[in-house]
Amino acid sequence: MPSTLHAAAEAVRQGQVTPIDLVEQCLERIDRCEERVRAWVFVDKEYARAEAKRLTDELRQGQRRGPLHGIPIGVKDIFDVFDWPTAAGSRLWAHSVARRDATVVKRLRQAGAIFLGKTVTTQYASFDPPPTRNPWKLDRTPGGSSSGSAAAVACGMCFGAFASQTGGSITRPASFCGVTSVKPTYGRLPLDGIVPLAESMDHPGVMARCVRDAAILLQAMADAADCEAAPGDWAHAPVAAPGDLVLGRLRGLFDDLADPVMLAATDRVVTRLRSAGVTVKDVAPPPAFAEVLARHRVVMAVEAARFHEPRLRRHPDDYGPCIRSLLEEGLRVSATEYARTKEHQRELRAAFDRSRGVSAFLVPATRGPAPDAATTGDPAFNSPWSYTGLPCVSFPVERTADGLPLAVQLVGPAWGEEGLFSAALMCEKFVGFDVGEPPVCGGQ
Amino acid sequence: MPSTLHAAAEAVRQGQVTPIDLVEQCLERIDRCEERVRAWVFVDKEYARAEAKRLTDELRQGQRRGPLHGIPIGVKDIFDVFDWPTAAGSRLWAHSVARRDATVVKRLRQAGAIFLGKTVTTQYASFDPPPTRNPWKLDRTPGGSSSGSAAAVACGMCFGAFASQTGGSITRPASFCGVTSVKPTYGRLPLDGIVPLAESMDHPGVMARCVRDAAILLQAMADAADCEAAPGDWAHAPVAAPGDLVLGRLRGLFDDLADPVMLAATDRVVTRLRSAGVTVKDVAPPPAFAEVLARHRVVMAVEAARFHEPRLRRHPDDYGPCIRSLLEEGLRVSATEYARTKEHQRELRAAFDRSRGVSAFLVPATRGPAPDAATTGDPAFNSPWSYTGLPCVSFPVERTADGLPLAVQLVGPAWGEEGLFSAALMCEKFVGFDVGEPPVCGGQ
Repeated sequence: MPSTLHAAAEAVRQGQVTPIDLVEQCLERIDRCEERVRAWVFVDKEYARAEAKRLTDELRQGQRRGPLHGIPIGVKDIFDVFDWPTAAGSRLWAHSVARRDATVVKRLRQAGAIFLGKTVTTQYASFDPPPTRNPWKLDRTPGGSSSGSAAAVACGMCFGAFASQTGGSITRPASFCGVTSVKPTYGRLPLDGIVPLAESMDHPGVMARCVRDAAILLQAMADAADCEAAPGDWAHAPVAAPGDLVLGRLRGLFDDLADPVMLAATDRVVTRLRSAGVTVKDVAPPPAFAEVLARHRVVMAVEAARFHEPRLRRHPDDYGPCIRSLLEEGLRVSATEYARTKEHQRELRAAFDRSRGVSAFLVPATRGPAPDAATTGDPAFNSPWSYTGLPCVSFPVERTADGLPLAVQLVGPAWGEEGLFSAALMCEKFVGFDVGEPPVCGGQ
Repeated sequence: MPSTLHAAAEAVRQGQVTPIDLVEQCLERIDRCEERVRAWVFVDKEYARAEAKRLTDELRQGQRRGPLHGIPIGVKDIFDVFDWPTAAGSRLWAHSVARRDATVVKRLRQAGAIFLGKTVTTQYASFDPPPTRNPWKLDRTPGGSSSGSAAAVACGMCFGAFASQTGGSITRPASFCGVTSVKPTYGRLPLDGIVPLAESMDHPGVMARCVRDAAILLQAMADAADCEAAPGDWAHAPVAAPGDLVLGRLRGLFDDLADPVMLAATDRVVTRLRSAGVTVKDVAPPPAFAEVLARHRVVMAVEAARFHEPRLRRHPDDYGPCIRSLLEEGLRVSATEYARTKEHQRELRAAFDRSRGVSAFLVPATRGPAPDAATTGDPAFNSPWSYTGLPCVSFPVERTADGLPLAVQLVGPAWGEEGLFSAALMCEKFVGFDVGEPPVCGGQ
């Protein structure tokens, strides 16, 4: 049976497998691993099977919607899906049924994707550790906040999943779980029907098994109506020629923060890319970058508090300690400090727009491998891109001696998804690592 | 204590009563009558009292938001109110908590209104009889679908309420319960955050104790951003001079359908208005009007089925017999029939735009007084205005021998709310009827 989305799509197209087969394959995986991994808030088997039958019938009538026709997908539980509850980790929202799909959900539905159920999010897409475990080592965190999406894709419980990021909630869990992710440019995708955290940094995005799969999913979620930069034909993005690519390794902040094992892995990636003919040069971030982590925290705390304050006051028990502490921090920030920070955010975005000279930045995707499950890990390698809105693609490059995936990310210019996918496809080809099956699914 | 919204607003302005007093007055009414009337899905006393305190404190600090500052309001349970469930009469939506206010709700909140709770709607704003009873006679229907809003305003449980109409769901219950209503021009108010029934005819609107109160509420719900016709200063609309007014009594359809008691009451209204100096002439509706009731039913059935079909298939038990029959009817309509009907709808709207020559139409608000509680009454006198989108104001003019209110409505030209309020204020002055207190509240 196919393990990647694009292979599954091709097999469906050729009539070798049906949507029914794909759904059964995923449900079998869920039956096998879910009890230990806990990636799902719920799986709606009856709905998924009915959709699979409907989409299989469509194929028999000669109708194929495209590469997502009949592909089983997980949906992070902050995205509204018609007739399913959107709990976002809240006890009080456990039965809050959505009357409409979020726009990005509606688009994948129209493209023929089959939603299997809702995947676990940390509460309100923040930092409180979720019940989900890392399928590579069950005492480790899968990362957050898109914990269930990452774990589910890693276990083959679905071929791709909706994810979202305000700090490091896409790239970090994807990397900890050994899957590929894309966080697009801020503004690329509409936010309606998605529970907000900090609206100026909330990004919908996707997780999948490889760069091509992520590109297919992102393309189906984007529309020319959303923003001035029309989406390209990302699903068919060409693999960049190594000689055409100049990657900038951002020095400073990330070198200081990275674990030695992550730094060494990144060095090996650079060496192999150079051998392949890619130019990789050291670059310094703009001076304003020095404040990015502290400033990101201010924006996240203030904007999250703006949304959550009335609920926090009425339902303090419906907030875990990490999100509560974030909100309380946001409530203490002075307006002048927030205003200064928003100015910094604009300036840093503009600085990145001006001073590129590279195709993409090459940055470790996380500080190191997944830490233990008492936290969701450090978003420091991701929040700068949430803050500046630059698009990121991450993919695994190694596994550590004790079997945990490590990943790097490419960070492109704003609205530069097309070139970013080409660059990522090329890098994946030379330095991407087939992580295989997690032990919990029977792999080693 | 004040009984109208504008009197309450003036008393608040002058410091004679506080928002706390107004909320307590309404809660006392609810305690006294709710058990028999059943107007509310829930009343959130704790929230209402906290809001009353906050808005009273604002006044003490010299801040007054305007005429709605501290005014207790009911919200029909198809409008999203932040942190309250929107059930719309559905069992499966009973705990569907709204993450945001509907735009019209948000505007009244900003204007200082205090929401007491959610008022009963028929299921999905359709025709299945609700638990609510008519406060004038408990074996009669309050009308529907805005049943709870009408009954609550009639009982003085709130000073005004959100309502909505797709057939006759504002004007009919308001009239059966002896309160005033306004259904604005289609497109005047935004529909986001409101459970749809048939989107091309769904109108948010209000119920209140008199025309001035309704105008104040509608003005606070409208914004120049919503449509090309900017709202006027409706709260201060002048009372039209009788000699400036030409009313058109629409003959034909409505004469044929009205109960004799309603026809006689309307005749008396015409006589009294003529005595006051108003010109009232008989006018014929455009020829296309002959099909309006049947065509309205087609649009409602098809558009409701378009929204509800997927839920109806998955949750047939969550649909009462009337709404289910409407949806099944909608599913049987052919596309060509619907397309022809949409053309008819456009043509009839255009015909009314061209051929006025009167300030407003004068039409009975309902067929007659409230029938027994086994139905919600006949929307035939209202659905033509939902279909064509023309604005309507209704107000009580009599009580029948057995004590049931009767009302008439003025129907204005599209976007003609300003003149319509002036005309309605004038008519209310000459033929409006103070219905007094319903028996269930201790009146006679």
